[in-house]
Amino acid sequence: MQLGMIGLGRMGANMVRRLISGGHRCIVYNRTPDKVKEFINEGATGTTSLDEFVSKLSKPRVAWIMVPSGDPTEQMVLALGERMEPGDIIVDGGNSYYKDDVRRAKLLKGKGIHYVDVGTSGGIWGRERGYCLMIGGETDTVKHLLPLFKTLAPGRGEISRTPGRENTESTAEHGYLHCGPNGAGHFVKMIHNGIEYGMMQAYAEGFDILKNANSENLPEDCQYNFNFADIAEVWRRGSVVGSWLLDLTAMALLENPTLSDYSGFVQDSGEGRWTIMAAIEEGVPANVLSAALYTRFRSRQEHTFAEKLLSAMRFKFGGHVEYPVKG
Amino acid sequence: MQLGMIGLGRMGANMVRRLISGGHRCIVYNRTPDKVKEFINEGATGTTSLDEFVSKLSKPRVAWIMVPSGDPTEQMVLALGERMEPGDIIVDGGNSYYKDDVRRAKLLKGKGIHYVDVGTSGGIWGRERGYCLMIGGETDTVKHLLPLFKTLAPGRGEISRTPGRENTESTAEHGYLHCGPNGAGHFVKMIHNGIEYGMMQAYAEGFDILKNANSENLPEDCQYNFNFADIAEVWRRGSVVGSWLLDLTAMALLENPTLSDYSGFVQDSGEGRWTIMAAIEEGVPANVLSAALYTRFRSRQEHTFAEKLLSAMRFKFGGHVEYPVKG
Amino acid sequence: MQLGMIGLGRMGANMVRRLISGGHRCIVYNRTPDKVKEFINEGATGTTSLDEFVSKLSKPRVAWIMVPSGDPTEQMVLALGERMEPGDIIVDGGNSYYKDDVRRAKLLKGKGIHYVDVGTSGGIWGRERGYCLMIGGETDTVKHLLPLFKTLAPGRGEISRTPGRENTESTAEHGYLHCGPNGAGHFVKMIHNGIEYGMMQAYAEGFDILKNANSENLPEDCQYNFNFADIAEVWRRGSVVGSWLLDLTAMALLENPTLSDYSGFVQDSGEGRWTIMAAIEEGVPANVLSAALYTRFRSRQEHTFAEKLLSAMRFKFGGHVEYPVKG
Amino acid sequence: MQLGMIGLGRMGANMVRRLISGGHRCIVYNRTPDKVKEFINEGATGTTSLDEFVSKLSKPRVAWIMVPSGDPTEQMVLALGERMEPGDIIVDGGNSYYKDDVRRAKLLKGKGIHYVDVGTSGGIWGRERGYCLMIGGETDTVKHLLPLFKTLAPGRGEISRTPGRENTESTAEHGYLHCGPNGAGHFVKMIHNGIEYGMMQAYAEGFDILKNANSENLPEDCQYNFNFADIAEVWRRGSVVGSWLLDLTAMALLENPTLSDYSGFVQDSGEGRWTIMAAIEEGVPANVLSAALYTRFRSRQEHTFAEKLLSAMRFKFGGHVEYPVKG
Repeated sequence: MQLGMIGLGRMGANMVRRLISGGHRCIVYNRTPDKVKEFINEGATGTTSLDEFVSKLSKPRVAWIMVPSGDPTEQMVLALGERMEPGDIIVDGGNSYYKDDVRRAKLLKGKGIHYVDVGTSGGIWGRERGYCLMIGGETDTVKHLLPLFKTLAPGRGEISRTPGRENTESTAEHGYLHCGPNGAGHFVKMIHNGIEYGMMQAYAEGFDILKNANSENLPEDCQYNFNFADIAEVWRRGSVVGSWLLDLTAMALLENPTLSDYSGFVQDSGEGRWTIMAAIEEGVPANVLSAALYTRFRSRQEHTFAEKLLSAMRFKFGGHVEYPVKG
Repeated sequence: MQLGMIGLGRMGANMVRRLISGGHRCIVYNRTPDKVKEFINEGATGTTSLDEFVSKLSKPRVAWIMVPSGDPTEQMVLALGERMEPGDIIVDGGNSYYKDDVRRAKLLKGKGIHYVDVGTSGGIWGRERGYCLMIGGETDTVKHLLPLFKTLAPGRGEISRTPGRENTESTAEHGYLHCGPNGAGHFVKMIHNGIEYGMMQAYAEGFDILKNANSENLPEDCQYNFNFADIAEVWRRGSVVGSWLLDLTAMALLENPTLSDYSGFVQDSGEGRWTIMAAIEEGVPANVLSAALYTRFRSRQEHTFAEKLLSAMRFKFGGHVEYPVKG
Repeated sequence: MQLGMIGLGRMGANMVRRLISGGHRCIVYNRTPDKVKEFINEGATGTTSLDEFVSKLSKPRVAWIMVPSGDPTEQMVLALGERMEPGDIIVDGGNSYYKDDVRRAKLLKGKGIHYVDVGTSGGIWGRERGYCLMIGGETDTVKHLLPLFKTLAPGRGEISRTPGRENTESTAEHGYLHCGPNGAGHFVKMIHNGIEYGMMQAYAEGFDILKNANSENLPEDCQYNFNFADIAEVWRRGSVVGSWLLDLTAMALLENPTLSDYSGFVQDSGEGRWTIMAAIEEGVPANVLSAALYTRFRSRQEHTFAEKLLSAMRFKFGGHVEYPVKG
Repeated sequence: MQLGMIGLGRMGANMVRRLISGGHRCIVYNRTPDKVKEFINEGATGTTSLDEFVSKLSKPRVAWIMVPSGDPTEQMVLALGERMEPGDIIVDGGNSYYKDDVRRAKLLKGKGIHYVDVGTSGGIWGRERGYCLMIGGETDTVKHLLPLFKTLAPGRGEISRTPGRENTESTAEHGYLHCGPNGAGHFVKMIHNGIEYGMMQAYAEGFDILKNANSENLPEDCQYNFNFADIAEVWRRGSVVGSWLLDLTAMALLENPTLSDYSGFVQDSGEGRWTIMAAIEEGVPANVLSAALYTRFRSRQEHTFAEKLLSAMRFKFGGHVEYPVKG
């Protein structure tokens, strides 16, 4: 089917390629026109303005937005809302906050325009592996878009079937799922990323303890120098902690066993934060997911004010001068 | 090759079966003799006493212990140590504390007996999938046992190869690894389980937030009733959080979506605790692994003394009477 | 000076008494009129409707709201906003979210009405000890209210002076502080309560470890049966952990050493949650404050869905049946 | 009474001074003799060897050790054990691990020598305020030492009496307490320090959130520049979070509002670690005390291996290059 894609960054670009390969007709638009030219060569229809983009879409129009979350997405939704017509569909495939989805969907509903929020996981591997899609919106609108979801998703592939799945109708095992009304798609994606942070941190702490197993604080005959790449590799086979993140860890550690190529300065996107906010609103204890997030906050600072206050208190009650002293 | 297996519980039993299938000759011994009879029918040589067990092994004897960790393993190692001879090998395939391994290995070395610690992951699936083996001990002794490790481990199977692995000699991608000197095997297994706790808790918290997404504390139009089984399933395809634990989660949630069959009373074995102790000895921050462990501690109590003290303080400063009041 | 007080609950009632003792004239209003009668006897001027309340205040009117935070406070601010005139002052002395203060102040400013947010600590002891006041609002408006703040606050009392304070002008050492523009008062109060949760949890965990020092998991000759009341008491003298919360703990443990009178079902008000939300918005790691909050969330449930999922995973990979099993 | 003090560091020196002021006769010994000379002028009897030290003590000898914990204390206990006689008393007033106390007490008991473990809190303020003493040992031995404890402890002072204390016999309100058999004193001191870490971290996180309240991530009209010294000060009066640590915080922030004099490189002594180990052995959830400890571990590193692994995983799945990149 025909669709329009706005945003040809890392994610949008690969999704267009996968859609074209799947036989869909893609009208593309990007803030910088050079990117658009590149895709004309790959079989897409290029456009140089939002008006042109909308005019080239046949009704009911489907405009899929893959621009950075926050203000860029918000502005794009509003701009499309002014240009599109009743029955048209706007898909936000980025990382929006689910409360923003609910608000936008309500706003657009007033104009008869449908809004669908799609949480997308897969990163730079998605073009090849397919994208895991978590979808929120009205049932009929989601149904209309199924051909696109089918193409983008990985399908069953070679992954073993969950026992009992043969008796279900759900599309879940094909890698896409209508999770509920508006916001539900991004809510599920938010939790997905929250879990991702927690899993990453679990591996990270484990390998950190392995690395420091040569510490002089351990008894002399209990100190070890481990081969981290080999350990990650062996855990990929038959162990309880096998995962795709472990596969990636095994790659990274084989290439660069000391991880000297990596800064340890760890960014976080909105989802990890929103996950904790949802947990707090709901009253759910989320110690692990919070700690994973806080590690990232801490990783981006030299010393926190909190730590300086600890030093100050220790000096005041015990005369402890911390090394190295500043000032 | 020939080996002796002591302990025919869930783990030991399936390992014997996998070893027999792999062409090895198994002499077996178990505290309760009924289990032994069962394995005679499956092709093992049964024994009814430890003396008989040792006498049926050809030199250098290989005795693999799969009995509960702690005292039972300790007693068995000592009992074998009294019966075996220089050059013989004792393998502890259970969940021993690595410092115990180091101590035992030293003790046995005095008698010329070799000790190998093997951390084993795979659970009830190991017979079919193979066991991931993390091995600590002297190089020659480990080399001597390679045929057994090869049979027990999963091998490369259909799991994708880590890029660059083609240029390495390590056995890691076959699912077994000589991790270092004595204790190294169980150290790596300990960390493996620590990570396992952290990953499990990451999923658990994530699904808990999903479940409480119908909370009245969320804005009315942002409340969702999710299908947890479908969400677990869709994440198995193309997402960043795919893992074997997620596969199992998808099974459990499909069978019993409310998890009403499970108590939420969560045991912990020694490894999670030892992981934190190692982290503390080394000075490694391990917030996620600790929080995962503490959740289990908390899950087994009605109310902690800590919580009662919180109630008491709140009453004292604010006159807050907590509901329900005891006494 | 004259002021109006709305809300004669635990906090409001004692504040009126302290203000009357301090020579101020209090016009009072309460949702249930019985409370009002009680205060007429204590020297306040009673009113039976909001209109009457406003009419009895001389200009510029000062209306201090001490009703439950959230909707009751919001409604009261709006209702007063409709009845009051330019130059009048509304004080929110409750536990509002600082972002609500900012919004309300802006709304009232349109009508020429001033808004002051006052975070109040002191609990049921405040009448006797005085209330610690954290104030947000315009400088002139705050200045106008100083006589009230002075009366409500504890003053310097017998508490030792911080070295260097003799050279400062701040009112801080008298127990009230203009913290900044609107919202600043409740922001500081929010953090105060966040810290309070963390401190309480620190004591609670410490005493929990003391209580379980008779655990059979400790070596036999390292098991202790401690007298918790005496320990709390001895720490009050010369130790680093002395505090008012410890004073209260010492009281509670002396009266009821097993804390059997307390449920361990621990409520949380909004501030602990908002503190974490602020930390996340700012990117500040707040592991301790979060963990303190989550303990309260957990304390109010029998078993979390998270824990059941842990049980489910353990059963699936290890065949572990958790006791007690549900079902 | 007469006693011998070994170790004239910060703690030991001030304790000797307080004991001399209290009318006790102090025989002193120190590794470096210069310190000893200083105390001769202050009224102590100096000694230049351990043999001389022991010979100058009258029977039953009381030798109080205040040397660094760990090996120095261990060696000194053993050295004294060889020189002292049945009925003599060795007091370890340092920060020993309670399991070491139990072991040493048993060892010395074989020689008829008594051992008392005394946890001492008070820091550099102890000479003036008195020391809070947590005591473990045999009842008779502890009784014999009471005159010393009374002098060292703060006594009731001006601190308010806990209601009901008038009916108790305990010495707790005088600031010293016989907590139980050997090890009990240092166990209680260990928990004391664990709580101290938790409280410090609660304040530290709270002030960190206050400091970052000017973050651009907060809505523009909800950003604040707080005066931290004034906030610490106001909380000292009538609030729930008042404490001695807050008094010290108020001092530090008044002198140096940006805390630029402090490094934020925070040491930890053994007690915080042992507290967590005890919690784990007992099965007590200790999220707050653990997180407080881990903050210190983290504060002493530039980047953890864990953080680098997070960067590595993010690069592998998302192509995210973290800034600043190494290598």
